[in-house]
Amino acid sequence: MKILVIHGPNLNLLGTREPEVYGSLTMEDINDSLKLLAKELGVEVAFFQSNFEGALVETVHKAASLYDGIVINPAAFTHTSVALRDAFSAVALPFVEVHISNVHSREAFRHTSYLSDIAVGVVAGLGLESYLGGFRGLVGKLRG
Amino acid sequence: MKILVIHGPNLNLLGTREPEVYGSLTMEDINDSLKLLAKELGVEVAFFQSNFEGALVETVHKAASLYDGIVINPAAFTHTSVALRDAFSAVALPFVEVHISNVHSREAFRHTSYLSDIAVGVVAGLGLESYLGGFRGLVGKLRG
Amino acid sequence: MKILVIHGPNLNLLGTREPEVYGSLTMEDINDSLKLLAKELGVEVAFFQSNFEGALVETVHKAASLYDGIVINPAAFTHTSVALRDAFSAVALPFVEVHISNVHSREAFRHTSYLSDIAVGVVAGLGLESYLGGFRGLVGKLRG
Amino acid sequence: MKILVIHGPNLNLLGTREPEVYGSLTMEDINDSLKLLAKELGVEVAFFQSNFEGALVETVHKAASLYDGIVINPAAFTHTSVALRDAFSAVALPFVEVHISNVHSREAFRHTSYLSDIAVGVVAGLGLESYLGGFRGLVGKLRG
Amino acid sequence: MKILVIHGPNLNLLGTREPEVYGSLTMEDINDSLKLLAKELGVEVAFFQSNFEGALVETVHKAASLYDGIVINPAAFTHTSVALRDAFSAVALPFVEVHISNVHSREAFRHTSYLSDIAVGVVAGLGLESYLGGFRGLVGKLRG
Amino acid sequence: MKILVIHGPNLNLLGTREPEVYGSLTMEDINDSLKLLAKELGVEVAFFQSNFEGALVETVHKAASLYDGIVINPAAFTHTSVALRDAFSAVALPFVEVHISNVHSREAFRHTSYLSDIAVGVVAGLGLESYLGGFRGLVGKLRG
Amino acid sequence: MKILVIHGPNLNLLGTREPEVYGSLTMEDINDSLKLLAKELGVEVAFFQSNFEGALVETVHKAASLYDGIVINPAAFTHTSVALRDAFSAVALPFVEVHISNVHSREAFRHTSYLSDIAVGVVAGLGLESYLGGFRGLVGKLRG
Amino acid sequence: MKILVIHGPNLNLLGTREPEVYGSLTMEDINDSLKLLAKELGVEVAFFQSNFEGALVETVHKAASLYDGIVINPAAFTHTSVALRDAFSAVALPFVEVHISNVHSREAFRHTSYLSDIAVGVVAGLGLESYLGGFRGLVGKLRG
Amino acid sequence: MKILVIHGPNLNLLGTREPEVYGSLTMEDINDSLKLLAKELGVEVAFFQSNFEGALVETVHKAASLYDGIVINPAAFTHTSVALRDAFSAVALPFVEVHISNVHSREAFRHTSYLSDIAVGVVAGLGLESYLGGFRGLVGKLRG
Amino acid sequence: MKILVIHGPNLNLLGTREPEVYGSLTMEDINDSLKLLAKELGVEVAFFQSNFEGALVETVHKAASLYDGIVINPAAFTHTSVALRDAFSAVALPFVEVHISNVHSREAFRHTSYLSDIAVGVVAGLGLESYLGGFRGLVGKLRG
Amino acid sequence: MKILVIHGPNLNLLGTREPEVYGSLTMEDINDSLKLLAKELGVEVAFFQSNFEGALVETVHKAASLYDGIVINPAAFTHTSVALRDAFSAVALPFVEVHISNVHSREAFRHTSYLSDIAVGVVAGLGLESYLGGFRGLVGKLRG
Amino acid sequence: MKILVIHGPNLNLLGTREPEVYGSLTMEDINDSLKLLAKELGVEVAFFQSNFEGALVETVHKAASLYDGIVINPAAFTHTSVALRDAFSAVALPFVEVHISNVHSREAFRHTSYLSDIAVGVVAGLGLESYLGGFRGLVGKLRG
Repeated sequence: MKILVIHGPNLNLLGTREPEVYGSLTMEDINDSLKLLAKELGVEVAFFQSNFEGALVETVHKAASLYDGIVINPAAFTHTSVALRDAFSAVALPFVEVHISNVHSREAFRHTSYLSDIAVGVVAGLGLESYLGGFRGLVGKLRG
Repeated sequence: MKILVIHGPNLNLLGTREPEVYGSLTMEDINDSLKLLAKELGVEVAFFQSNFEGALVETVHKAASLYDGIVINPAAFTHTSVALRDAFSAVALPFVEVHISNVHSREAFRHTSYLSDIAVGVVAGLGLESYLGGFRGLVGKLRG
Repeated sequence: MKILVIHGPNLNLLGTREPEVYGSLTMEDINDSLKLLAKELGVEVAFFQSNFEGALVETVHKAASLYDGIVINPAAFTHTSVALRDAFSAVALPFVEVHISNVHSREAFRHTSYLSDIAVGVVAGLGLESYLGGFRGLVGKLRG
Repeated sequence: MKILVIHGPNLNLLGTREPEVYGSLTMEDINDSLKLLAKELGVEVAFFQSNFEGALVETVHKAASLYDGIVINPAAFTHTSVALRDAFSAVALPFVEVHISNVHSREAFRHTSYLSDIAVGVVAGLGLESYLGGFRGLVGKLRG
Repeated sequence: MKILVIHGPNLNLLGTREPEVYGSLTMEDINDSLKLLAKELGVEVAFFQSNFEGALVETVHKAASLYDGIVINPAAFTHTSVALRDAFSAVALPFVEVHISNVHSREAFRHTSYLSDIAVGVVAGLGLESYLGGFRGLVGKLRG
Repeated sequence: MKILVIHGPNLNLLGTREPEVYGSLTMEDINDSLKLLAKELGVEVAFFQSNFEGALVETVHKAASLYDGIVINPAAFTHTSVALRDAFSAVALPFVEVHISNVHSREAFRHTSYLSDIAVGVVAGLGLESYLGGFRGLVGKLRG
Repeated sequence: MKILVIHGPNLNLLGTREPEVYGSLTMEDINDSLKLLAKELGVEVAFFQSNFEGALVETVHKAASLYDGIVINPAAFTHTSVALRDAFSAVALPFVEVHISNVHSREAFRHTSYLSDIAVGVVAGLGLESYLGGFRGLVGKLRG
Repeated sequence: MKILVIHGPNLNLLGTREPEVYGSLTMEDINDSLKLLAKELGVEVAFFQSNFEGALVETVHKAASLYDGIVINPAAFTHTSVALRDAFSAVALPFVEVHISNVHSREAFRHTSYLSDIAVGVVAGLGLESYLGGFRGLVGKLRG
Repeated sequence: MKILVIHGPNLNLLGTREPEVYGSLTMEDINDSLKLLAKELGVEVAFFQSNFEGALVETVHKAASLYDGIVINPAAFTHTSVALRDAFSAVALPFVEVHISNVHSREAFRHTSYLSDIAVGVVAGLGLESYLGGFRGLVGKLRG
Repeated sequence: MKILVIHGPNLNLLGTREPEVYGSLTMEDINDSLKLLAKELGVEVAFFQSNFEGALVETVHKAASLYDGIVINPAAFTHTSVALRDAFSAVALPFVEVHISNVHSREAFRHTSYLSDIAVGVVAGLGLESYLGGFRGLVGKLRG
Repeated sequence: MKILVIHGPNLNLLGTREPEVYGSLTMEDINDSLKLLAKELGVEVAFFQSNFEGALVETVHKAASLYDGIVINPAAFTHTSVALRDAFSAVALPFVEVHISNVHSREAFRHTSYLSDIAVGVVAGLGLESYLGGFRGLVGKLRG
Repeated sequence: MKILVIHGPNLNLLGTREPEVYGSLTMEDINDSLKLLAKELGVEVAFFQSNFEGALVETVHKAASLYDGIVINPAAFTHTSVALRDAFSAVALPFVEVHISNVHSREAFRHTSYLSDIAVGVVAGLGLESYLGGFRGLVGKLRG
């Protein structure tokens, strides 16, 4: 089983900016933790980050033949990208949507998502554990 | 560290009804899995279920002096109970809100929550893993 | 065939208060009429009233193995109780929603119902006949 | 006592189309059942159907001097005809609004009615029994 | 100069029903007053009433070559008929919209009009004088 | 019978500004026409204009003991002044609201009025005739 | 294969009124072009126009046994007629909705349609080609 | 004269939790102050608190024959309980709604109340004085 | 300690108009009662009334250096005056908002206030006692 | 005459994914059909596809000097891209918006378009014929 | 060229109140800076401040014959005064709307303006530079 | 001090398209004027334009270590890009949002901005002076 982890826009800055909102973990720290978890669960894992919506869309397209599922933190595109939604619908890969911070206690425009209703599940507010929990949940679903 | 797990209304029927939405796990199955996880993480765990909003409110009140945090599946009260929200605000216990199914792909009235913005985090749609992930996330936050 | 008739909050006062809105029939009068109708139709009937949402939820739970259908006047819980809706969804018992007064000509918040879209049917504004018509309609549906 | 039963637009097709929504009873079947009920209750009954809003409006006008009350299935005009509402207001005849299917579980635009708040009562979702229950309820109200 | 006065649905009942809302004048009384006024102003006047939207639409079509302007009380069609609006747009005849009662103090759905923004002017609440004032205003506009 | 005519804010500029919206008549021209009409109808008439909401409120207060009714063009205060509404409610003088231009074909914020629902009637879009028609209508109502 | 083309209210005036919105083609010109296209495609075609909603409803009823599909320009009824929608649902004939002008760049109330979601497709803004494209598309769909 | 003071959900925690919002007075302190005030005003006073909506509903039912009026701090039920509203409507006892904190400067969902429009009056934001002022106001109203 | 009591627009008419809404007390009666209460509480009191928003704004400005707090019945300006809100924000004087009638049971536009969220508290519906309770509450807050 | 056909995001997957929504035609199949049609109409045609909004914007910029019009299936960007709208407004090239599926019968967020009101026309739901009809309509408009 | 600078309600307090929002510059400081800028640009400048809407309206009226343009900080009247808007429309003087603070990051009711859409431009959040930038922009526009 | 000026999508066309909305200045003309102003103010300035949201996001990321502030005309991304907002929040660089045209008098979707509430200030409608005024204001803020 192979899982792709996708980080959306601005997450390349993680851990270096706004630590009061996002904590001090970097994207690399998160990836390292996920690698450990993947090994523990006996699955393969790969990573991708981009600030370009088009690049995320095409990564989802290609994932269809390479991975069994996706864990994605769509960040800002959660709230604005129908193209990303359509990409997920097209490839029909199961995915879990994760957020480091609790989007429900932030601005109103962060309370809606173009992805949640077609996701397997959603995890928010648990920091690193959002990724880990989402990863575990996805693997569990795939193993059925 | 002691964690209380609260199951809201109708969850006593879990596993016996609507398996296409909620799966075939019973509430007892979930509790058993949580006991194992708690042992693994080295924390204590207790359980409570009620179909009465007042009983949940008073359980939260009492939890303030007995537990370090709460994992709650508020079920239908997610969308209707300001009293439960006020109880959590009053005792200021950290809690994680969990849902077995993906509430975001169900009826519109399930898209709003009186608890999410004051919760530590929210997990939805991952079945049993929603509880486990929420539990892990809460323990992680409490251990800081 | 066994039918349960459930009266929601404040209906224990029926006939003694606000006769200009609800008429002068008491809940007992209604139950007596329903007993006659049940006898005429050759079905069994039982009754339950509570002002506690939790008690209604648990009554619906128990009804699943005891009755073939439910006639319910959910009164105020029509507009506020997702828990009651979830109870009906869980047990999947056919039910008819009835109202003594015409809720459509009262306050705006009485124009929405958490139960109508999952009910077999809805009867409003016909006084005692709302119960009788709903009862007849339910029996008719059950007899196919 | 004389009661007029009015069928709104498209109901002339009843029983021949969309049986999964409306059942297989024809409009004539319904009228036959209503005739039997009328005889049983000792009242007179007449029928009218049209797909023209103006014809329904004028039928209500004329009914004022010929009938004691109206049972109407306004069908699509429920949601669009202020003229029909004004006709009922003008003649001030008591009427009951009935629907064969449960409009509350259909499209959102079927959840509003220009007639419900000025009707004596409303019955929906009970098939033939919607007409029978509405008829009984109206006669009951008229007999006071 | 020739003016057509159009009365919308239910206005054939005027003066015989709901006098507390519409007064006791009949449509014929109004027409008589308008004939006197027309004579005084030196213009010709004709009248039309229908409860059928299609008949009003076609009357507006024909009016284009016969009249210089229209005074219309669209009654219920004010709030529901795009077809009538389109008819007026198509023929581009100047018209004044009049209402006997003060629609602004009635139900919310009577506060919007498909005609007002393309009318020359609107008069409401002045009873017979609504027609007379609208007639005078239209003649004044036409005489420039 | 004595009628007060009130002109609201900016109407002192009438006829000198925006003739494409308001025409070329000045406020004095309107007052002269109203004096002629008043003489013709055998009633007395007085006039007041102010750009201060407070001055209009106090004028309405004083009018209670001096006049039998008011014709008011509230201009911009139509859409913003609850104080003016309360003044009219307090003195309970019958009044007609008039507008020179057709407010219904202008900006959306001009489609609501704090006065219309407590006015006797409303006239809009007929230029000078809006005042004259409103005046005639008010006198007609007062003479019953 | 037989196709019915229906023209809604006011389209009888086409080409004679508002040419800046609808162009100078008459309804007969459109019908002639459609006849040529039908011949080219080897299908039969018939035409109907009415300003009466009821007449359109009954035409759709009758079409069920006479035609294989419908091309309709519902004009103003697009936005107001639930009865027409119900007629199409009842007969379950495939149909394409067409508009001569681009309804999306006109008034807001023209942006919603009671027909679009149950139509095979929608064409707007292409003038005569809206009819021709809709006709071709419908024939293509019917030929599978 | 006998007055019942009702404290809604979570108020049993008053003074021990969230002092920055609710101050440090306990529910008992408030009751003591009210007893003094009652003595001063020469009226009797009793108290009730519950976290169960059903218990509050039944307390209002019983109050009808025991008390002349009610001072209630409905807390969270202010915003969610139609059942409590219906209980007050049923018994028709005059009551004043009080809030310790200024609900208007808190979350948006606290700006609406199911009770305010049927209450005699509302007091918010004045701490202990909210109860005392509400109590004085109710006694004043009852004494006419 | 010195308190200023401000009466907003139309309150100069109090007791002489609409007694069914506002009672028969005059503004002077209220002021006299407040003088007695002020003496009893050992504080000074002064009064101001105006129908001009600008005059109220400037009175609040000047109050900053002369008074310790304000009790204001903003009347109609409650719902329309951002300028008054800004004046209170600028001078940062604590104030209580009072209303004689229960604004919550009146027109919808009276349910919003530009002042409530920055006020210390709000009292409505208790007649004279609204002023007295607000006054006591303000003094209590200032004495802290 | 030269026409550019633009395919928006995810359309590179056409025919290989979600055939129940989009059919089994590939983007290349569509392009081939359009080439045939172009030849038949005697016009030139070129094609472009991208998943990057910026690339589509710049393609529209360059098209201004190379093409006479554009047929675009903006896919997901229909509902989210103001930049694409601004690009079309800037170059002022006539364009037709096409959709393979009937967007009106899909999710609510697909019912709004940033392009429709500035397009020449819109075609939806006719599969390949949506492109062909849009192409024909555009050529027809350009030939005037 | 002569420019009038108008300061709206509460701006007379500038620099003495709420420095965290508005800074410590007084209105006189701003006027002094504007005088220097005016001299530098070779234009004349005058100033006006009032807390009365009516006074601002009449100042705009008089400005029509005395000035070439207006820089206005409408403060609270931005959000509430249609009369001020109408005054600007009537005199048709070009004007720039300025705000010291960033109104977009304050309360929601400050996000709408009755003036912005008829202003030449809007400047907000730049403190003193808001006035200077607006002044420069207006002069630039007037010099064309 | 170093300032970055960012031009959003479609601004590369400035001066060559839609001169009636945006004037005839090119982006290069604006940059030249800003260079002069920067020299006058003694600050450095650099420029960037892109039609790709991702490129703007990454430019903001890199700006954090290279510049003291940003002047941005986000153009279409004003209304759609949460990613750009998040980039600004992440780097916490002060920035001013500028628009050449008056966005408040254009389409409704241009009245909202994802950037305004976190910007230092906003300037709109002043053409070239929008950039110059925003530049001056930003430098002033940075010099404190």
